[in-house]
Amino acid sequence: MPAYRDVLGRIPEPDVEAGRQCQGLLDMKTKPQGSLGRLEELACQWAALRGEPAPAMPRKGMVVMAADHGVTEEGVSAYPAEVTAQMVANFSRGGAAINVLSRQHDVRVEVVDMGVRVPVEGLTGVRHHRMGPGTGNLAKGPAMSRKTAEEALSVGALLAIELAESGVTLLGLGDMGIGNTTASSALTCVLAGVSPDMATGRGTGVDDAGLTRKVDVVRRALVVNQPDAADPLDVLAKVGGFEIAGLAGAALGAASKRVPVMLDGFISSVAGLVAARLCPRVMPFLMASHMSREAGHRRVLEALRLRPLLDLGLRLGEGTGAVLAMGLVDSSLHVLHEMATFASAGVAEKSQR
Amino acid sequence: MPAYRDVLGRIPEPDVEAGRQCQGLLDMKTKPQGSLGRLEELACQWAALRGEPAPAMPRKGMVVMAADHGVTEEGVSAYPAEVTAQMVANFSRGGAAINVLSRQHDVRVEVVDMGVRVPVEGLTGVRHHRMGPGTGNLAKGPAMSRKTAEEALSVGALLAIELAESGVTLLGLGDMGIGNTTASSALTCVLAGVSPDMATGRGTGVDDAGLTRKVDVVRRALVVNQPDAADPLDVLAKVGGFEIAGLAGAALGAASKRVPVMLDGFISSVAGLVAARLCPRVMPFLMASHMSREAGHRRVLEALRLRPLLDLGLRLGEGTGAVLAMGLVDSSLHVLHEMATFASAGVAEKSQR
Repeated sequence: MPAYRDVLGRIPEPDVEAGRQCQGLLDMKTKPQGSLGRLEELACQWAALRGEPAPAMPRKGMVVMAADHGVTEEGVSAYPAEVTAQMVANFSRGGAAINVLSRQHDVRVEVVDMGVRVPVEGLTGVRHHRMGPGTGNLAKGPAMSRKTAEEALSVGALLAIELAESGVTLLGLGDMGIGNTTASSALTCVLAGVSPDMATGRGTGVDDAGLTRKVDVVRRALVVNQPDAADPLDVLAKVGGFEIAGLAGAALGAASKRVPVMLDGFISSVAGLVAARLCPRVMPFLMASHMSREAGHRRVLEALRLRPLLDLGLRLGEGTGAVLAMGLVDSSLHVLHEMATFASAGVAEKSQR
Repeated sequence: MPAYRDVLGRIPEPDVEAGRQCQGLLDMKTKPQGSLGRLEELACQWAALRGEPAPAMPRKGMVVMAADHGVTEEGVSAYPAEVTAQMVANFSRGGAAINVLSRQHDVRVEVVDMGVRVPVEGLTGVRHHRMGPGTGNLAKGPAMSRKTAEEALSVGALLAIELAESGVTLLGLGDMGIGNTTASSALTCVLAGVSPDMATGRGTGVDDAGLTRKVDVVRRALVVNQPDAADPLDVLAKVGGFEIAGLAGAALGAASKRVPVMLDGFISSVAGLVAARLCPRVMPFLMASHMSREAGHRRVLEALRLRPLLDLGLRLGEGTGAVLAMGLVDSSLHVLHEMATFASAGVAEKSQR
């Protein structure tokens, strides 16, 4: 049995009572009740997911998975496909946006080559779990086999479990892959029931002609592959990507260890949606970091019933928005652990008027 | 001449060219152009305000000004007035939300007693610039004299200049004062042209009856005092507060030293609006950190033509939202200074399709 399937039955329920007790602790702090808004919600969600009223500060990890996409031969991206591998090298050297923001927020970054076109050798700190030299062109046939999709899911699940066992308690999901907004749009169409024109955006920045071409490619992908919405593994295999499958697996693995998952933008959230369709029990563990500028993202978050924490017009991926939102989780926990209470500070509570 | 008036003529224009050059630097970084959205805008705004294309990381300061309000005798707050002084003690001991979040984001906090009802003695690190034991009840007459308003403005301006000269390059404005949402609502009515029911919210959490009473108090304040919208100093004196005047002065002083000002929620933003009405040249230096839950805040930000960075349902004050947004300014500058360029990382640029 593929390893990822093993975790599906091990995803726990949130501990609602721990969340309630956390709110009780926050209500004793020197501030009007509820006045820290979503920071308070975050702390309580964290408590419920971790299963204790006042859990420790998060230890933050970010999995950035990279892979290439055969569909780039259709001219769906503003950047050439070799950029995927070049960016993996950039991640390895610490020069990308995700490295910079992760240093700011003390987030450990794990970079995984899930199948870039030409393997990059000799990179420090890059894990290689190559499913192949990029997926097949989903406009002409399946992106990968069902078996490969299960292998990629398992890679992600096992990595998340490894990170959890090494101490990570909050996991971000980041992506890199020229062409992966096209795959994500196709997945969104099937898994969220959205039409290709609503699910497709400009990605890294195609022009109007490029966008028209992209929508057409997504349409063809659905016609050619006939993915079965009732079978999420079929959908993932036919119109997904290696990194998307790996990230979906990571979400499942993390949840099985009570590790909340911070989604990033469109691709990362689509991976969350794949995970949710494979196993709805993962859903409470998913957090939406931000609302991307990419067109389909809103639909994906709606399908996941998630409200993003930030809306900063980001459309970079890599996990950048997730890391920014992790800073807010830190804030919520600092409040929980460090603020004085009305009693300890000698501050009068709300009067009865 | 009061000190604050002296700074009005010394507020510089933003350096538009430096901002443009900053965008040029960002466009060389390994990411699609503009893909970091508002983080890129923040970096460019910072460059324009600081007057150089790649200015140093911000050195962050937060001024929290506290004062009492005579209008609390009308029953406009859910908390008793002594909480103002108790919270000043809490700030001094590092137990309040603003202390906790400022530690997370490496922000220096300066607490100023601008006139709490009963002076709190022997507090470490609290500056005393007491304009009196709280303002007069603005529902029955002026909150303070014109002269006192000018003194409070000067205290703030001189403090901001002192902080700038000691190295602070980004200044947050925080407030504490039971009753100060009532004064802020009255100021909003006059300075933003909004009716009392639109400008008045629940503050720290009054019930429906309390809210009705608050709207009525604001209405009476306008009738009794007849503040002259064309004379912002008159408005500030009649329906303002000591801490609001001090914070408005701090905004002016900061801008005179090219120090951008991060506004917090309703009260802090109203102080920014007072500053903008006294001297419109301050406006480019004002940044909106977040959209508060307090009803009038949206109107104040509209009047200032500012778009908030965060929307987290905060309604605490103290500068808490401002500190969270300062973390985003940090992020934008980390990106500017630390990311690799396409050339340095050997990453291909956008193709011409």
